[in-house]
Amino acid sequence: MADPFSPRFDAQGLLTAVVVDSATGQTLMVAHMNAESLKATQASGLATFWSRSRQKLWRKGESSGHLMRVEEILVDCDQDCLLLKVRPEGPACHTGATSCFFRRLRPDGVLERVSG
Amino acid sequence: MADPFSPRFDAQGLLTAVVVDSATGQTLMVAHMNAESLKATQASGLATFWSRSRQKLWRKGESSGHLMRVEEILVDCDQDCLLLKVRPEGPACHTGATSCFFRRLRPDGVLERVSG
Repeated sequence: MADPFSPRFDAQGLLTAVVVDSATGQTLMVAHMNAESLKATQASGLATFWSRSRQKLWRKGESSGHLMRVEEILVDCDQDCLLLKVRPEGPACHTGATSCFFRRLRPDGVLERVSG
Repeated sequence: MADPFSPRFDAQGLLTAVVVDSATGQTLMVAHMNAESLKATQASGLATFWSRSRQKLWRKGESSGHLMRVEEILVDCDQDCLLLKVRPEGPACHTGATSCFFRRLRPDGVLERVSG
């Protein structure tokens, strides 16, 4: 079964992109992509996002060397989210943690570190 | 190591919430949460989002019966995204698919179904 890709960009021209490790399934980070960054990702095979803070294309790992090789791009039912399955060449988080989701929210409202 | 939880809601008062199956690690869906829906989720143990289309609280599965029992809430480094690890009581997607991410984007720009 095949459908056309009709991405539903938000008012800023962005899709939400969830990034998971293709080997472990671990959720690594969430970022945003515009049409240009999606095209750059498909052309290079390297995860490339739109930096909302810097308002420019951002190849993940361009400064750290921790590139992410994209193995598959999945699209959700209403086409406003992408799921990138990647092979990361280093930690996803700027803190050095493997995943940006390295703390859990405890019932008492405190964040507790759960992984490296 | 413990930090205070200081969620960074966007201009609409929302956080992005990625939902994964706690047993399989599969990414199921992406939705949004405001402060009220987060509080409702913590109080009930059932994933409760903010519906942007209907502008109201939306307990996942309230009509389908496919509730999601929340086992853990992780918070990302800059605190604008949550990761909910859940035990789903049915398919996550309104199409009946286990995950909303049931199609892959092929290099030729066509969506191809990859999973149920």
